[in-house]
Amino acid sequence: MNRAEALSLVKPHLTEKRYEHTIRVLNTALTLAERYGVSKKQTELAAIFHDYAKYRPLKELKHWIETTYLPKDLLQFHHELWHGPVGSILIEFEHGIKDEEVKTAIYYHTTGRKDMTPIELIIYVADYIEPGRNFPGLDDVRNMAERDILKAAWMISRNTINFLMSKNQPIYPDTFHAYNDLTKKVYGGC
Amino acid sequence: MNRAEALSLVKPHLTEKRYEHTIRVLNTALTLAERYGVSKKQTELAAIFHDYAKYRPLKELKHWIETTYLPKDLLQFHHELWHGPVGSILIEFEHGIKDEEVKTAIYYHTTGRKDMTPIELIIYVADYIEPGRNFPGLDDVRNMAERDILKAAWMISRNTINFLMSKNQPIYPDTFHAYNDLTKKVYGGC
Repeated sequence: MNRAEALSLVKPHLTEKRYEHTIRVLNTALTLAERYGVSKKQTELAAIFHDYAKYRPLKELKHWIETTYLPKDLLQFHHELWHGPVGSILIEFEHGIKDEEVKTAIYYHTTGRKDMTPIELIIYVADYIEPGRNFPGLDDVRNMAERDILKAAWMISRNTINFLMSKNQPIYPDTFHAYNDLTKKVYGGC
Repeated sequence: MNRAEALSLVKPHLTEKRYEHTIRVLNTALTLAERYGVSKKQTELAAIFHDYAKYRPLKELKHWIETTYLPKDLLQFHHELWHGPVGSILIEFEHGIKDEEVKTAIYYHTTGRKDMTPIELIIYVADYIEPGRNFPGLDDVRNMAERDILKAAWMISRNTINFLMSKNQPIYPDTFHAYNDLTKKVYGGC
């Protein structure tokens, strides 16, 4: 599937703003793929489809979680976490995209997980640092992403946990596992 | 076992400063036990023995983890986390204390865990707020401990995760599970 085709499949499912965000994630992700020697073809597809399921009704997202292999504990956490895993299923179901590396990059783009693949890291980081984002500390992550994508991902997992705790929210286990795994990889053992 | 006997068994294993800390934890824990209607007898024993294994050589702590039912993943985390679980084993092995409620309060006093028992909550909170401790935000936890011990424990689990992240340290899974569980109990679902 080429870029124009992928974009034409995604566009009807997104708001105008979310589509613009998707284009920025695509460009950021391709820069990172170039920098870290990761397949641009797979990165392109994952970036374009990463928010594919974002605007499905909650009832539909819930249905996909309930009726597929997706872990049921997602339903105990904020629905913001649902569109990644459901999106990874829908791109295969609706468009025949079976590439596991593309699918898991979409699946884990919000939470991260232990032992993220290169494409997962790129989409996770690109979604966070794309130039439309703006919040305190973000430039530190942008600068780090150019030098060390593992450490940039570590900063994102730490910031995400901090953000959730400041809102008195629970933390999805994969986010916590991403933080611990990246801490060990970046800073070593105890 | 009465209080004097328990104290005499613990004292040889602690530094003078740690023994004074133990007395302050004991007094704080008994106040909380009175406030929340929890057995003073069990609380007393758990408080007195909570740091029983704190000064065992690391090699001995490691040995107990390797050769008993204690989870081996403890060895992947900071050795500060080892004395609670090992202490819970040693008080039975060396002094015949088999009371499960006392043992788990000692086991989890550093990390917390999901679904903490009343005595576990009391020792976890008392160890953190005893009057010898002094750091920013502690008075908020002390005030909360008088009103709502679950919320005080939630604040401690959140502060502990924040502290560990500020030191680029991994977080033991039980600490994370304590935070998520207490978040749901204190603030409800999403």
